Parts: sequence; C-alpha cells; structure tokens
Amino acid sequence: MTGRPIVTLDASLIPRLPASSPTLFDAKKKKNLTFEAIAKEVGREEVAIAAIFYGQAQAAPEDIKKLAQVLDIPTEVLESQLAGFPDRGRTIDMPPKEPLIYRLFEIVQTYGYAYKAVLNEKFGDGIMSAISFSTKVEKETDEKGDWAVITLRGKWLPYSRF
Amino acid sequence: MTGRPIVTLDASLIPRLPASSPTLFDAKKKKNLTFEAIAKEVGREEVAIAAIFYGQAQAAPEDIKKLAQVLDIPTEVLESQLAGFPDRGRTIDMPPKEPLIYRLFEIVQTYGYAYKAVLNEKFGDGIMSAISFSTKVEKETDEKGDWAVITLRGKWLPYSRF
Amino acid sequence: MTGRPIVTLDASLIPRLPASSPTLFDAKKKKNLTFEAIAKEVGREEVAIAAIFYGQAQAAPEDIKKLAQVLDIPTEVLESQLAGFPDRGRTIDMPPKEPLIYRLFEIVQTYGYAYKAVLNEKFGDGIMSAISFSTKVEKETDEKGDWAVITLRGKWLPYSRF
Amino acid sequence: MTGRPIVTLDASLIPRLPASSPTLFDAKKKKNLTFEAIAKEVGREEVAIAAIFYGQAQAAPEDIKKLAQVLDIPTEVLESQLAGFPDRGRTIDMPPKEPLIYRLFEIVQTYGYAYKAVLNEKFGDGIMSAISFSTKVEKETDEKGDWAVITLRGKWLPYSRF
Amino acid sequence: MTGRPIVTLDASLIPRLPASSPTLFDAKKKKNLTFEAIAKEVGREEVAIAAIFYGQAQAAPEDIKKLAQVLDIPTEVLESQLAGFPDRGRTIDMPPKEPLIYRLFEIVQTYGYAYKAVLNEKFGDGIMSAISFSTKVEKETDEKGDWAVITLRGKWLPYSRF
Amino acid sequence: MTGRPIVTLDASLIPRLPASSPTLFDAKKKKNLTFEAIAKEVGREEVAIAAIFYGQAQAAPEDIKKLAQVLDIPTEVLESQLAGFPDRGRTIDMPPKEPLIYRLFEIVQTYGYAYKAVLNEKFGDGIMSAISFSTKVEKETDEKGDWAVITLRGKWLPYSRF
Amino acid sequence: MTGRPIVTLDASLIPRLPASSPTLFDAKKKKNLTFEAIAKEVGREEVAIAAIFYGQAQAAPEDIKKLAQVLDIPTEVLESQLAGFPDRGRTIDMPPKEPLIYRLFEIVQTYGYAYKAVLNEKFGDGIMSAISFSTKVEKETDEKGDWAVITLRGKWLPYSRF
Amino acid sequence: MTGRPIVTLDASLIPRLPASSPTLFDAKKKKNLTFEAIAKEVGREEVAIAAIFYGQAQAAPEDIKKLAQVLDIPTEVLESQLAGFPDRGRTIDMPPKEPLIYRLFEIVQTYGYAYKAVLNEKFGDGIMSAISFSTKVEKETDEKGDWAVITLRGKWLPYSRF
Amino acid sequence: MTGRPIVTLDASLIPRLPASSPTLFDAKKKKNLTFEAIAKEVGREEVAIAAIFYGQAQAAPEDIKKLAQVLDIPTEVLESQLAGFPDRGRTIDMPPKEPLIYRLFEIVQTYGYAYKAVLNEKFGDGIMSAISFSTKVEKETDEKGDWAVITLRGKWLPYSRF
Amino acid sequence: MTGRPIVTLDASLIPRLPASSPTLFDAKKKKNLTFEAIAKEVGREEVAIAAIFYGQAQAAPEDIKKLAQVLDIPTEVLESQLAGFPDRGRTIDMPPKEPLIYRLFEIVQTYGYAYKAVLNEKFGDGIMSAISFSTKVEKETDEKGDWAVITLRGKWLPYSRF
Repeated sequence: MTGRPIVTLDASLIPRLPASSPTLFDAKKKKNLTFEAIAKEVGREEVAIAAIFYGQAQAAPEDIKKLAQVLDIPTEVLESQLAGFPDRGRTIDMPPKEPLIYRLFEIVQTYGYAYKAVLNEKFGDGIMSAISFSTKVEKETDEKGDWAVITLRGKWLPYSRF
Repeated sequence: MTGRPIVTLDASLIPRLPASSPTLFDAKKKKNLTFEAIAKEVGREEVAIAAIFYGQAQAAPEDIKKLAQVLDIPTEVLESQLAGFPDRGRTIDMPPKEPLIYRLFEIVQTYGYAYKAVLNEKFGDGIMSAISFSTKVEKETDEKGDWAVITLRGKWLPYSRF
Repeated sequence: MTGRPIVTLDASLIPRLPASSPTLFDAKKKKNLTFEAIAKEVGREEVAIAAIFYGQAQAAPEDIKKLAQVLDIPTEVLESQLAGFPDRGRTIDMPPKEPLIYRLFEIVQTYGYAYKAVLNEKFGDGIMSAISFSTKVEKETDEKGDWAVITLRGKWLPYSRF
Repeated sequence: MTGRPIVTLDASLIPRLPASSPTLFDAKKKKNLTFEAIAKEVGREEVAIAAIFYGQAQAAPEDIKKLAQVLDIPTEVLESQLAGFPDRGRTIDMPPKEPLIYRLFEIVQTYGYAYKAVLNEKFGDGIMSAISFSTKVEKETDEKGDWAVITLRGKWLPYSRF
Repeated sequence: MTGRPIVTLDASLIPRLPASSPTLFDAKKKKNLTFEAIAKEVGREEVAIAAIFYGQAQAAPEDIKKLAQVLDIPTEVLESQLAGFPDRGRTIDMPPKEPLIYRLFEIVQTYGYAYKAVLNEKFGDGIMSAISFSTKVEKETDEKGDWAVITLRGKWLPYSRF
Repeated sequence: MTGRPIVTLDASLIPRLPASSPTLFDAKKKKNLTFEAIAKEVGREEVAIAAIFYGQAQAAPEDIKKLAQVLDIPTEVLESQLAGFPDRGRTIDMPPKEPLIYRLFEIVQTYGYAYKAVLNEKFGDGIMSAISFSTKVEKETDEKGDWAVITLRGKWLPYSRF
Repeated sequence: MTGRPIVTLDASLIPRLPASSPTLFDAKKKKNLTFEAIAKEVGREEVAIAAIFYGQAQAAPEDIKKLAQVLDIPTEVLESQLAGFPDRGRTIDMPPKEPLIYRLFEIVQTYGYAYKAVLNEKFGDGIMSAISFSTKVEKETDEKGDWAVITLRGKWLPYSRF
Repeated sequence: MTGRPIVTLDASLIPRLPASSPTLFDAKKKKNLTFEAIAKEVGREEVAIAAIFYGQAQAAPEDIKKLAQVLDIPTEVLESQLAGFPDRGRTIDMPPKEPLIYRLFEIVQTYGYAYKAVLNEKFGDGIMSAISFSTKVEKETDEKGDWAVITLRGKWLPYSRF
Repeated sequence: MTGRPIVTLDASLIPRLPASSPTLFDAKKKKNLTFEAIAKEVGREEVAIAAIFYGQAQAAPEDIKKLAQVLDIPTEVLESQLAGFPDRGRTIDMPPKEPLIYRLFEIVQTYGYAYKAVLNEKFGDGIMSAISFSTKVEKETDEKGDWAVITLRGKWLPYSRF
Repeated sequence: MTGRPIVTLDASLIPRLPASSPTLFDAKKKKNLTFEAIAKEVGREEVAIAAIFYGQAQAAPEDIKKLAQVLDIPTEVLESQLAGFPDRGRTIDMPPKEPLIYRLFEIVQTYGYAYKAVLNEKFGDGIMSAISFSTKVEKETDEKGDWAVITLRGKWLPYSRF
C-alpha cells in the first residue's frame, strides 16, 4: 500500500464537518490506508465509506465496529462521534469550485433535461431516487488510457395521484 | 408506440433553446416517436439524441441525415438549424428546480467529495472528463420495483506537471 | 357559486407556464368555477387540480377527459397541451416574494431542523418523499376565527446501505 | 429507550446556535432521551421541543422548569440561557442542502401557487399565519410501508382594507 | 390639479404587472389625477390606492365601482381585470435599486434588530403583522424643510405555544 | 421591572458586532433593565438606544456618560469602546430570515412602489432621508388586541438639478 | 461635429429603459449631436443630460422645452414621455460587467472604507448625499496622456439624534 | 486634536484585514491622530493613508518609515507587516450595507451609463483607469451647509486595436 | 472553405446583443466564411473580429469598410449599426455555463492568486491591463494531439502613489 | 535578491488554505526568496510553484524534496503537509474582488464567446483542457513600457460521439 498517495483531510474543510471526520481521517493517515482497503474490510462500497468519512452517510453499528477495528480507534469514541444522523450537503458550496466535482455538476447542467426526457419516456412521471440509491466508481483501461466509470442506481418513484 | 406518452417541448423553455429545438420536438410529436425509437434509427444513445434536441450536443452530418429521415424534416432545414456549435448549459438554472434533475444535483452535492476522494486514490490528481465522455440510461426491474441506472464514463485526465 | 371570487391567471406569470395554463384558467374564468367545484367533478384533491392548472402536476388521461367536460374545452386540445411531462418548480423564484407562499417557506426555514430531528428519531436516517406524496388543504373555524390546515403526507424512504 | 438512535448536535452547527443549544443537546445525549420522551414530560409537541433545542422557539417559564428537571440541568443555567427572545431562521441556508429539509422546500416550490390558489378561494385574500401556528409530525404505517404526516395549522389572516 | 406632475407607468415595469395596471395608469394619466384625488374619491388611503394600481393590493367590489367612475373606465373591464387575487412582491428586485425605495430597505437593514428588541420587550415573542396592517404617508413642514412621515401599524401576533 | 423578560444578546451574533455590544448587553442583563428604562434615563428613543447596543447608531458623549451611569459600566470603558463611528448594516443578512424583521422587509417589498408613487406626487422627485431621520415604536391596544405602530420620519431631499 | 463618434442606444438595453430613451437617442443620432453639444444648449451638465437620456434623472419643464428644440422632437411627445418620475437604477446589473463602469465600482470596493474613514473624521457621523448632489466629468491632458476627472459633490447629512 | 473623534477599527472587520491593520489603528488610537494629521506627516493624501490602514494600498518604503515615526511603531514591525502586496477589495461585501459607502455605490448604479456615455464621447472607446489613479476628499461650506467633494482622476486608457 | 463548419449565431443569444450581431452573423453564414478568413481580409486578429461580431469590441472605420466588403453588407448599414460604443460583458452570465468558456473561468479561479503572486514579484504592485491588451489563439499539434494556445498580452499598470 | 519585495501570505487568507501554505510562505519570507528563484531551483514554472504555495497544485515527490531543501523546511514536515490531493478553487470568491485577478476574469467575460467561436472553427466542437494544461508568465519591455504576457496552453478535447 506504500507509494500510492492517499486522501487526507484539508484543514480548511474541518469547520464544515462533524467531529468524526478528523478522527477518521487522522487514523486513516496514520495507518496509511486507502478507501479501497477500508471498504474491503468493512464490506461496503468505497464511495459509501468515503461518504461516512465526510459525514455524508450514516454508519450502521456493524460499520462502526469494523471501522474502529481497521482504523485502530477505540470503538466507544467512534460510536459516540457517529451516533447522530448526518447533516448532509454542507461540505460543498454549489456550484462547486473543485474542478473534479465541477465536472459532475456540469454533466447535470448539460444533460439534465436529456436525462429527464429519457427517464420520463422510460418510466413515466416521477424521479430517480437519490435515497433508495447506490453508487460505485470503477476504473477501466484501454488503449486510449484510463476511464472512470460512475454508476448511479436509484429506485424509480412515480408521482402519487391524489 | 401508442399508449406511452412521449416528451414534448414546454413552451416556456423555447427562449432558452436554439431554433432547431422546436423544429425537432414538433416533428417528434407529430410522428409520436420516443427518443428510444429515434436513437435506434440514428444509431446513438438516447441521452445523446435528447441532448441534440435540447441543443446540448452537436449532431454529426450523418446524424442530421438520419434525423431528417426519421422525423420527416427537410434535410436542408435541419442542416441549416444544426449547422453551428452548441452553446451548452443555458437551459437550466442551477440549482435546478425540477425535482428529477435536482436529485442528480443532490447526488453531486452529497457525494461530491466522496467521489473525489475515491477517484484521487484510484487515479491520482486529475479529473474525470465530461467531454471525452459518454453516458447512458437503463431500466432494471426487480421485486422491489423499477430502478433507473445512469452510467457516466469519462476519460481520466491527470493534471499536467509544468 | 356566484359572489365568491375565484382565482384567475396573472398575465405576468404566463411566460413561466406551459401552454395548457392559459387554456385552463380562461375556461375556469368563463365558467366561473372554483377549484373545489372542479376537484369534486374530477374526483381529486383541490391542490392537485390547482397544481395541474399551474403545470406542476401531470393529469392522467381520465383527468383530462373530465377536465375537458367540466371546463367545456375540446378534449383533443387538452390532450395535446397536457401530453408532456411537467417541468416543475419554475413558476416561483425562491425565496418566494408572495407573502402567502413566503409563510410556508418560513415554516421550513424556522422548523426545518426540528422536523428533521423528530423525523430521524421516529423513522431513522432517511427522508419524507415529496413524490410518493399527497397533500390537502382544509378549513377549520372556531371562536378565534378561521384556521387553514395543510397536511403533508409522504412515504418514508430510508437511505440505502451500499 | 435503548437501541433507537437519538439526535445529537453536529459540531459544525454550533456557531449558528444560541448558547442554550449545546447545553440542551449535551444533556439529551447524556440521558439518552428522544424528543418524544422529552415532549411527553414537558407536555408539548415534539416539533416544539426540537425547535427550542435549535433556538427556534421560545421556552415558557414552565417549559424551562420541566426541561431542567427531565434533563438534569440546573434550572438557573437554563433560565439564564433561555432568557432572551429567539433569533429565528439563521440555522439553515436556503435553499436547504440537507435532503430531508430540501424535500419540504421542494413542496413549497412545486405546490406554492396551488396552495395559494386553493387558500384564496377558500378564505379570500390573506395568508395562513406562521406565528399563530402549530405543527405536528405523525407516523403512519400501511402495507406499502411507513408514512410521515406533517400537519401545518395556522390562523387565517385577511388583508386589512385601509 | 394642473401644474403638479403625477405618477405614470414606466413601460419597463409592465411585464411584471397584472393587466389591470396599464389600464389604471392610462386612465389616471388621461384624467391627470393624483393618487390623493383618487383616494379621496374612493375613500381609502393613498398608499392603498397606489398599491392597487401596482397590483399589490386587492380592490374590494365597492373600490372597483368607484375607481371605474372616477377614472372613466367601463366597470366590467375593471371588474374582469381586478377579479383575481394579487400576486404580491414581484414588481421589485431586492435589494431595491431605486434610491427612494432603497432608503426604506436601509432602515430595515440598519434598525432591524433594534426594532425587534424594542418590540419583543414591549409585546413579548411574536411579530408585527404585515397583513392585519395599515400604513399611511403624511407631509410635515417646519423651518428646516419638508418631512415625510410614514406610519406602519400592524396587529401584534404572539407565537402560539404548541 | 421583574417578570417581564428582557432582550439579551444571542452569542451567534457577536462576531458581527463591535466590542461595545457584549459590554452593553451584559450590563443590561445583570441590571435586568429594559430598553424603555434605559431610554428614559438617557433621554432618547428606545429604538435609538437599542441601535446603539447593536452598533448601528453613534452614542453622543452625553449618552455615553448616562449609559455608563445607568448600566454601572466604567465610563472610560464605554468611551473607549464607543469612540469610533458605527459600521452600519452588517448585523443582518438580507433578505432577513428573522420573521419579525422579515415582515418589515416584506412591507418594503410589497408597498415599495406605492410609497414611491405617493411620495413623488406629494413632494416631487427625491427621497425620504434615512439619515435626517427619526423613528419610534408605540403600543396601542383596542378590542381586537395589541397593535404595534412604527413611525418613520425623514427629511425630504429633492434631487439637485445640475 | 463630424468625425467624432457619438453615443447611440444599444438595442439590448431598451427593455430596461422608459419610452423616452429611444425617442431621445434616435433624435440624437439623426442630428448627430454629442451630449456636450446638447448640454450646452440646455444649460446643464453633460452627465445630467446623459442621465436624462437613460431615464436616470428627471427633466425639468424648461429642460424638456430645450431638448425638444435642439433635438427636433415635438414638445408634446417629450412632455408626455418625460412626464413621470424616474425609476432609477435598473439599467445596470451590479456588479457591472461593463469594464468602464466596473472601474468606478472597483474604486468604491477598494477605497470604500478609506472614504468613510476620512469623511467621518472631517464631518462626523453621517453620509455624503447622493441626492443633494452634483457631478461632472472633465478632460485633462498632460505629457503622460489624457486624464478623466470625475467630481462628486454631495451635501453632508449628519445622522439625526433621536 | 482633542475633541474631534477619530476613526478606530471595528473588531468585526479584523478577520478581513491584514496583520498590519490592527497595528496601525491601535497606534493611531493611542496617539489620538486623525488621518489628516498622519497624511500631512507622511506627505500623502488622506484617502491614500486610510487605504494603507485598511490594507487597500501599498506603502512605499519611505511611507513606512514616516508611519513608524509618527505612530511610534518600531520600523521593523511595520516593515515586516507591510512587506507584501495588498490583496484588495475583500473588506467590503458588495452591494455595501454601510449607508455612507452605499451612497457611492448608488452613484455608480444610477449614473454609470451616463458617465460611460460622456466619457466615450470625450475620449473614445476605453476606460478611466482605477490604477493610474488618484483621489481626494475635500470639505466645502456654504450657506446651505457642508459639502463633501470627492475627486476621481484616472488615466484614460483606449482599447488596443489588435 | 467548404466542409469545415463555421460558427453561427444561436437565436437565444440575440436579445443580449446589439443590432449589428445578427447582421454580421447572417452575412457570415450566407458567405460561409470562417473568422480566420474574415480576419485575414480585415487585417486583424481572429479573436478581435469575433469580438466585434458579438458586440464586445469596437470596429474602426477602416474595419467597417472591409467588413462590409468581405461580407457583402451595404457599408452604410454597418456604419450605422456599428456607430456606437460597445456595451461589453453582457453576453455571458458568470460563472459561465458553457463548458469551453468555463474552462477559462476555472483557470482564473484556480491560478488567480498564483498569477497575482508571480506578476507582483516580477512587476511590483499593479495590474496587467485588459484594455491596453491584445490576445490571440493558436493551434499546435504534436504526437499527443492538438493543443490550443491562448496568449494574453497586457500593459503593466503600476498603482499610482498619491 | 534584496531590494525587490516578495509576496508574503495575507493572514486573512489562511482559513481558506491547507496547512502547507503558511509553512511554505513563512519559509519563503525568512529566506527572502522570490517565486522565480524557487522555481529555478525546483525546475518548474513560477506559476506552478506559486500554485503549490496556495494549495492549488499538487507537488510531486521530487518537488517536495527540492522545496524542502531550498526553503530549509524538514522534508518530513512538507511530505506530511503536502501528502494529500489539492482541493482547488476555494481561495477566491468569484467574481474576484482583487483588481489584478478581476482583469483576468474580465477578459473571460468580454472575450469568452469570441474565444469559443475561434476555437470551435479551428478545432471543432470541444474544449481547451484546463487539466492537460500549462501556463507561464513573461515580462516584455518596449518603448511604451512593460508588458505582461500570459500564455495558456491546453490540450484540445473533442466531445465524444456516443
């Protein structure tokens, strides 16, 4: 696991994050673990683990136990810091200034109506849930280079007729 | 193709769209075609076709010929209206107010830093391109209901060292 | 039905609405009908009917037939104008400037975290759906005067664990 | 009361809250009490209690006494910290980024004009008060799952004629 | 009434106003009437009359009759154009750019917390209603010059305890 | 003076206020004084005194002496902290989120053009000064309840002709 | 007067201007007159004349007569179009995008507090009026090139003590 | 120099200012000096000196020496704190909330296009520089009262033809 | 010149452009000319020519003559439409939504302080002029593909000492 | 290297920067080094070095070693502080208030569409990458003075056809 740089926590983000974030990132840095390695141990998707680190997803009790183990954090510290419910969405100012995150924003900005049109014709009037939802990131390589593949999978929710 | 409602153009959007959009949507409505049907004829992804309709993607010369054919529009009309280069991104005000599009925006808002963290660890310092990029929408059905699956695939671009 | 003023369409809103809105409101004005009367005929909630008038909800085929009948609009005109999928949320600039609508906004602004806290404790980590959702408006009167009662009822969606 | 996670205070919110908020939330966490349990003791609605915790509602003298008792906080501490008048609305940036709170915002954004239309026809020109106002949250369960029901009840205020 | 210039309607405001506004202002210009003269005839406050002209207040049936009379507008035209409920607040972008209106905004910006503090101590926790509300403008003259006096009078609404 | 709650300083506001504000509010709390009581001692309007407390108005030397006396603050402390010139307007984000202050904002938003129209016809082209200006708050009670009356009195300034 | 280009009206500005603006600018273009020439005829400052053209200043009756004469516009047309009171400030979006106007904005942004400090020390607590105000533009030339000199002269208004 | 209040530094501004600002303002307060007195000693304009105090202008080496002398600050402290290049413009949020600064902003908002028009006709296509620029504040007194006169003098920069 | 698509004018941009823009773009489309071809004829940079087309740069008299010639537009039409001074900056909403233009914006956002630091050390306290300024676009090709090279060249303006 | 002032870190920026920034700037100040000197030692462009200092670019392992050496910082301190991935774009609020950075922003605002038009005609539908990108700053001097030349060089990325 050496040689490959890992993500650490930018100090300027801390005021926007719950108390658990510095705890988790400090341990990650000390143990020099990637999200991939942690996710494998916890048995969840890398994106989900990273979202827990940034306070954007709730850790289940079994996740907390495994995180404590793999990161060498006293379980009761993690349990206490991760006890509440996430207060999502406040880490980023929108539109995002970070170029990587902006590209995702731009995809929504450019293809938003196209997605809506195709989804409406395929499913009717409704939305793709961002809650009954999972996502993953994969890496593909071909002769042209590396490709990032992000999959978004959400339950289709039709509008109620009332 | 009957029975399934198709997407038409909301009049209040027209001032934000190029001249080609009403032409294309009117023909689509008259012929009662879904984007799926048009995409199959043109040989491209549904999202790409919808993006052309909303002026968010450029139609190649061969696309224009096939669109003219399948939609019964005089080729020279389409060629003239689709001659330029798209002026992307102006159809939507961000944050999006449309609930379906907002859900995609919310995914970026909630998981933005998690995606960045995972991508950085997998690929290094860089971005997933939104230009060397393709996307598709699929429908899955299981016992819990219908699921929308959106795939984003972009070339990884590492930051240059200069 | 006379004597009680009914809601008509403010001309300055038309550029933000689909073509169906002036059609529906003109007929409503000509027939001098309240939303209550229309809703009773169509067999739906008043709010749902008003939302259809403002292009914020989709009318089912049977709704269109009944609307055409009660409003004396040729069915095929309504069918054509209401054929698409609603492009929701663009009638209002947020924060709302209209005092009545602002009061609802203020309730979210003031009690937002309180609702979240109570809902999280009652249901766990998730959201109340605004899609699998119904709402109604009722009038109560007591010795202190009239009271408006708005009920919001949404399916609880727990966050997926992935 | 064990087993069911309770709401705690996210550290990043503290700079937006009055001094009473950490006091109240710390005691709540130490005693592991839900808002439901506290509300029952104080004899008020859960949402009202949560609003007091977030500094969005004023506690009456009798509320303060009961809160001190049930939370084991010295009465004079609470009396001092809750002595003033709430400075409402500053905990949330609007539009809300939190998905749960956003859904409430979206309901206003989507149905705002529909509510106004129905209320105007039912009551005349005026507003539903957000001050002479009460609200509650209920849980319903049927074969489709759990439902959150939020009731808003406000006095109708007609515009004065002057 | 000659010699003293009267307020007319700036063409650039019309897209933000209901259909009644140009009708009323055109007649006012043709008859060369001040709001004072009209208000005296209708028996209401000048500000209320001006607010009706800008679509910010509802005209009662008796107001419509008198307005039609004093302005020489066919009653049924006014009745039709003033039939609905005002959609308030959209004439101005806030912060206001107009210097006169900005001064009022600045008073709120500068003295907002001072008003709140004084009102809270005088009345308790609540608000001064802007609905059960009246206002008037008066002119005073002393040796230092002319003074404008604006009076705001609103019902005090205490927050409900629920 | 007991029994009636007084206004204290919300800790979350302090970073926006000058050093004098906590000094003044702490003393006010310790002495349990209303603004009314302080204003009477100092011989100024309540709103003016509250504005000094929030750093929105300058205290004259004689005001400082009396404030020091009535609040039991060493004169030289107050003289030093109140020595400068107010940096007005930064305590509030506009539009105001506080419901009480929002109502004043809404009055400007709703009646702004009406005030302008009436003032222009009464005084000509100019503004009501917010500097050569005084204001007061009064309480009236009738059978319908309590009424807050706010008076704004400003010098009329005609535009110079140059 | 030939050879030197004069200012004409950009069509894209017209929707933000009163009806008088195209009338005045068209005549100015037809007669090929500079603001300097017009100002000399009318006997006012160039900036004042230009402000009248953009609807930002009121023309006095004698100004209207002279403008009609020098621009060959029927007096009654101008009288009618310039009859009202200016609705100032809406021609520009702030921050200004126009580089020339931005430079003035930047001066306020950069030196704002410095001006305030110097003015407060020279005059006390108050403002420089923008209403009892005049301004002019002059051209100076020295060996380094041309210099624009803008003079702002406003009455000092001290804050009232109330 | 006694009796006339001087400008001191509002604590709430400090986080927006460089380290030199509190140093300079503290010394100014201790020595009870006006900007006029300091400027005379340093041999520069008052506005320039105030701009240095707020971190909006660079002090030349000779300015630093004289400032150290007149303010009794160790030269090496000032040299170190004033060593860098100003990061201009961040002290103020625009639009400015401070009434005095707002008036200057309003002048730009109201007369922006008029200035542009007059400058374009006098100088051609270009801008008045805000960099090759000087400014001063003067006080005039006549029978009507005091007048503040602000002069802006900037080099005219014509657009390059390329 | 055939085969290579040329830039045409998106109809949705027209309301933001001067009258000359559709004239120029229509002629360009009819003659099927690239900006490169036009620039070569006129003897100016491509970017400058494109800027004239979008109303962002002034055409000199000799440019107008050549443009009329190469585009087959009557000279007096162009002379009249290009007579005024550009009202720059209003074609784009910032931040730009167009991905190509956004990339330039992002460069400023990411490297802004780095540019400032390097320029300050190289030149002292001042700015690179955007007025005494020229720019060009070049295409380079190597084994990795095509590269766009944009050069910005501006006069260095040191801040005046006053 | 003496005599020429160097860039230091404005304290008010620190909360927006990673922990490495004060470390690097402090050492730079102590050693009194320009970015040019550092860049020469590290073997990279000045802008790249400055971007690393502001946390806007990633330092490669060999950069870190050389930076530690030239700046006399313990390598392991730098390695630890520069271990993560940059969180770009948050140092500046856009639109930039700093005049130097604003000029770059203005160039994008003014010439944005012109660049797009020229690039589209030269390269087709796509963007100039800001990631596969390099930039440099050069100084030129001629008889008119000093000129800053900024070169932007980015890979051309054509939109994928999917």
